[in-house]
This record gives sequence, structure tokens and C-alpha cells, in this order.
Amino acid sequence: MAVDFLPVPGTPVEEIDTPAMIVDLDAAEANIRDMQAVVQAGGAALRPHTKTTKSPYWALKQIEAGAIGVCCAKVGEAEVLVDGGVNDILITSEIVGASKIARLAGLARRAKITVVVDDEANARDISDAAQAAGSQVGVLVDVNIRINRCGVEPGEPTTTLAKIVDGLPGVRFDGLNGYEGHIYEIGDARVPETLEALSKLQFAIADVKAAGLSVGTVSSGGTSSYDITCKVPEVTEIQAGSYIFMDGEYVDQKMPFKPALTVMTQVISRPTADRAILDVGLKSIANDYGPPRVMGTEGATFTKLSEEHGALALEGSAQDLKSGDVVHLLPSHAGTTINIHDYYFCVRGGVLEEVVEVAGRGKFR
Amino acid sequence: MAVDFLPVPGTPVEEIDTPAMIVDLDAAEANIRDMQAVVQAGGAALRPHTKTTKSPYWALKQIEAGAIGVCCAKVGEAEVLVDGGVNDILITSEIVGASKIARLAGLARRAKITVVVDDEANARDISDAAQAAGSQVGVLVDVNIRINRCGVEPGEPTTTLAKIVDGLPGVRFDGLNGYEGHIYEIGDARVPETLEALSKLQFAIADVKAAGLSVGTVSSGGTSSYDITCKVPEVTEIQAGSYIFMDGEYVDQKMPFKPALTVMTQVISRPTADRAILDVGLKSIANDYGPPRVMGTEGATFTKLSEEHGALALEGSAQDLKSGDVVHLLPSHAGTTINIHDYYFCVRGGVLEEVVEVAGRGKFR
Repeated sequence: MAVDFLPVPGTPVEEIDTPAMIVDLDAAEANIRDMQAVVQAGGAALRPHTKTTKSPYWALKQIEAGAIGVCCAKVGEAEVLVDGGVNDILITSEIVGASKIARLAGLARRAKITVVVDDEANARDISDAAQAAGSQVGVLVDVNIRINRCGVEPGEPTTTLAKIVDGLPGVRFDGLNGYEGHIYEIGDARVPETLEALSKLQFAIADVKAAGLSVGTVSSGGTSSYDITCKVPEVTEIQAGSYIFMDGEYVDQKMPFKPALTVMTQVISRPTADRAILDVGLKSIANDYGPPRVMGTEGATFTKLSEEHGALALEGSAQDLKSGDVVHLLPSHAGTTINIHDYYFCVRGGVLEEVVEVAGRGKFR
Repeated sequence: MAVDFLPVPGTPVEEIDTPAMIVDLDAAEANIRDMQAVVQAGGAALRPHTKTTKSPYWALKQIEAGAIGVCCAKVGEAEVLVDGGVNDILITSEIVGASKIARLAGLARRAKITVVVDDEANARDISDAAQAAGSQVGVLVDVNIRINRCGVEPGEPTTTLAKIVDGLPGVRFDGLNGYEGHIYEIGDARVPETLEALSKLQFAIADVKAAGLSVGTVSSGGTSSYDITCKVPEVTEIQAGSYIFMDGEYVDQKMPFKPALTVMTQVISRPTADRAILDVGLKSIANDYGPPRVMGTEGATFTKLSEEHGALALEGSAQDLKSGDVVHLLPSHAGTTINIHDYYFCVRGGVLEEVVEVAGRGKFR
């Protein structure tokens, strides 16, 4: 079987073979601490979303820093987290189908598992599976407060579903989930747009409570809204995830976190004075939020990402770049970039400290 | 360790858990046969590019159908192919750096390995490594004929490098590589644009021959130009790859191959009469060539691909879609979609025949 030739701890970063996903541990750990402090000061708990990181390594660091648990998007990701020692997980996507629901119910024997639900039949399926497994699955009713994706509407539809869930065996009605969706690139509108979405969530909460149910958990918020959402009294936990490494796109929004993840790449061709070709392509850096940008190489501009190649335009001192030289790229979207790598190369002070597997990669079932 | 729960051969396709990458074996095998026949009739050999498929399973099917070997983009992919029983591989990217070159030279002990080179120092590094390994590495000088990426210019620069390579121990000057680049979406200009690029390659060949070298191999062509390029007498082999499954984008260009790969997904939420949410997202289908399209569900239009969700707009009978129903999506770009999956689910007549690992996924070093 083809093996991966991996560098050992202590290797200088520039000697790691490329393309390689490099994490600056000091920056990522500062982001973890800073988000925890802001959310806690705002009065909410932090339950970081791990769809970005896909690894128990980072989840455990976040929990050690004070997070009450984590979120993930898929049953397969939750299985990887539980195997890695995480014991409190919220799955923020509807889980449908006999096979996945059986796995969900089985996993709830090993850890505290909560899932969002927006459909009565789905709630009954989960209830049946949990009873068969002898487990209990926590349920948050998923409320559509802005993004118009999944979720029931606030008010009567939410309350009706909450009452049904509350009456089912094997499941535990824990509260509501309402994600405002990405609220960025809207400048001054960020605060009113977030508050408008949350007012729908507040209405939904009040309506459920008026029906006599208790709403223990209200899960909401992301990296683009955490600072607003964490101060809304009804919100008990914040689901932010991207803050840990920061996307190029978020960096543009001047969010107060440090870019902590780059893809280190190598020049493989210098065909002209003003062009360098890199060993990075769409198979090792994502472009769904746009092309990456060059970090730390003055005069080099990223011009084209194709399937197996990246191209730089070079000016001034960047024209000294030689074949074999390394170039760091900041991905516009960390989540989809991590999704195509098998390893994090975690670096401190320019030296490799740990190689960490992206254990949840590909676990999208 | 979290396991993958995989369906066994004989499972009906609609019972495979989603998201799942489904290959219609009859369609893929017809594509393999059809490309082989056209290229052979045109007078060239076929050396399919496996950057799309990343698996010896498909390479061996192509070789069984008459291909003389395959191409790949990375040393790690070549290692996977050799381990899987493929014994003639052209690496179409420049391979730079001591570690990768040592692996390249080592691999050449086990199989016929050829690599493209556009730089004298790189050629010398490969020569040194091959001598140290006791192997011989084939070299094609990489000529820039259209795409302005890697490669030396035709004429004097190509011939000078060819002569240097020809004089080095441990390497074998085999000929030239000249890729026209993607020539699609240009309608009537496709033939003249291809021929113009190939005229540069013809000039480069003549110039090298005039210097007294023999040019045994001329590698060129892709899925967008194979039918033109295979008839140019100097071209000995065609590197087409995408034809095996066909991208949504190529389908739009009315190429004569069958779409053979879909991502099967499942409805996880039906929040309104005209909206369905699917369990597919950017983590399981690529959008670098644009969003996927719905296959076989009349009245359903793909509207939005986000990180963990896909959204459909529904009209007419599509409004009968229920939570749990499966929907097939044709990716706009198969290569980058395969790159985020671990398995091909190979189906014939609606029944699972084989589960095949994407063994070369992530082997981009």
C-alpha cells in the first residue's frame, strides 16, 4: 500500500514536503481563548462547530479551554469525535434514513448526542431507533430564523413540533436551534440583521414556553455574529467554528481573529521572469470563496488556480523566487480546504510540533 | 476507529447510503472503448490521464481496453498506481525537491516511469537521484504550446534542454510533452486553435530532430481536443482523462461520451412546497466549474450549494419529493468531486457491482 512519508516533530516548517496544510498553533490557540472569553463574557456558553476542523484534536482543545461540547454536521463526523474522546455533541443537520438514524441512536449509548429536527415523522423515527437501542437522543427543534434552508417557522409550527417531541419516548426535548446564517459583507447592517433574525428565535422560544414546555437550550450564532448573539439573554450557546483558523474571506471582514492556517506550496516551474508555477491546485486548496492569497512573499500575486497548478505573477524581489522555494497561501475558505487534506502540520515558532490527522474527512454519511 | 458502513455487492442503488458517488459501469466502459477506438483510428496511442480517477481500478480497465499506460499528476499518485499493478506511468507535472525526486527515482525501479522536465537543474537532480537509486527515469521535455503555465518555448530552448537531458546518466530522453490546455467553449475555433498549438509542437519536434536527437514520444491532447490531436502524425499518444465519466461542463459541449458519474443524495428537509434540502454540500460535490445539475427528477432545479447543504427549487411533480427520497446530481467537474470522496459505488443495471476505493485521493505530494 502506498504510504505517506511524514515529517517528524522538530522538523523546520520549510522542510515539510508540499503541498502541506500548516497550522500556527500559537495563533489557533489564541483564537480558541479569545472566542471563549468573548462568548463567556456575553453570557452564553460556547459549543464550537467542528465542520471546519473535522478532528477531535481541535475539539478537545476547545473543550479544555471551556467549551461545553461541540457541534458537527454528520453522523459520521460525530462517530469520529466520540471515538476521539468528545462526549457532548450537537448534530446541526437533520439526520434522515434508517441507517443513519440507527447509527445516531447507537452513538447515543456512548455519549450525549443531540440532533436538530424539523419534521414530525423524522422525530418519530429517531424515537423508535433510540428505544430499540436503549438510548436517549436529545432533540432541538430547528427553527428557520433567516437562512431559509431547513427548519420550521417560529410560532405555531415550532411549538407543535416541540410538543410532539416532548411526548415521544427515547428522545428528550432540549430546546431550539436557530442559525442566523452567514451574516457578513453587510457592514453596518450586521447588527440589525442579526437582531431581526434573533427576534424570530425569541418569539419561537416564548411561544414554546407559553405552551408549558421548558426550553433548556437555545443554540445559535456563528463566527460572523457571535459577538452580538452571545449577548441575547435567551441564547444559551454559540455555534461558531471558522474563528479557529479564520478564512481569507473572514479576514477581509476584519474579524478579530488571527489567520492560523495556510497551505504551504512549492515553486515547481519558473518559465518566465514574471511567472512562477506552484504545486498547489484545486485538489489541495479550495476556491469556492475565491482564490487564495499569497502570505509573506512581497511582490507575488496569485493569478490562477487550476486542477493541478497554481500560478503567481511576480514583481520586484518576488522575481528572485526559485524552483523549490516555498510560498504560503491563505485559503479563502478553510473548511473546504481542510476537507481535501489528510493531515494538519501543527507548527510553533517555525518548527513542527505535531502531525494531526483530519480524522473526520470524508465522513459525510 | 470510526468505520465506514459500506453496502455489499448486489445492493439496489437506491439503498446505498448518501451522499454517494455512483458510477454507471456500462456508461464508463463504453466511454473507455469509444475513446480507445477513436484515438487508435486516428493513428495515436492512448495514455489516459488518471488525475480524474485517482485509482488503479480504472487505469487497469483502460489498459485492458488498449491503452499503453497512463498519466498522473503527482509522485504520490504514481506510487498508488504502481502498487495497484500499473507499470507504465507518465507524470505530467514537474517534480521538484529532494524528497519527491528520491521517491520518483525509487519508483522507477519498480515500473517504467517518465516525467516532464522544463529546467536543466531539475533534470540534473533527477539524473543524480536515478543514479543513486540504480534506476532509469524517462524524461519528456515539457514544451509550452498554448497554456502559458509550465514548459519551455519551442525551438532553441526546447532543443537545448533536450540535448542536456540526452547527455545525462540515469535519465532517458524520450521525447516531448505539449498540452494544448482546455480547448472548449470556443465552438468553431476549436479546430484552428488546436492546430495552431500543435504547429508549435511540430516546430519543436523538427528542431530537436534537426539537432540529431530522436523523438520517440510526443504526448499531447485532452478530452476537448483528442479527435483533432490524434490525427496529427507527429503526436504518438493522447493524454485525455475526463472522458471516462464526463463532467457536466463537457456534457454542455456535446462531447460524444456519456455522463457516467453522479452524486446520489437524499432529501433531508421539505420546509416548503417548493423547496427541498439535500444532504450534499461543498464537502461532497465540487462547484469549481459551477453548481451540479439534477438528473432524472423532472421539475427539480438545483439552486444553492453551501458547505453542508444543497437546495432544490421544485415545480410540478417534483413537489411530491419526500424526506428520504434520493436525487442524482451530475457534478460540473468530476475530477474535483472524486477528490473529496473515498469510494466509487460502481453500479450496473441499478445494482451495486463493486465498491472501489479512490486510492489516490489526497496523494498530492
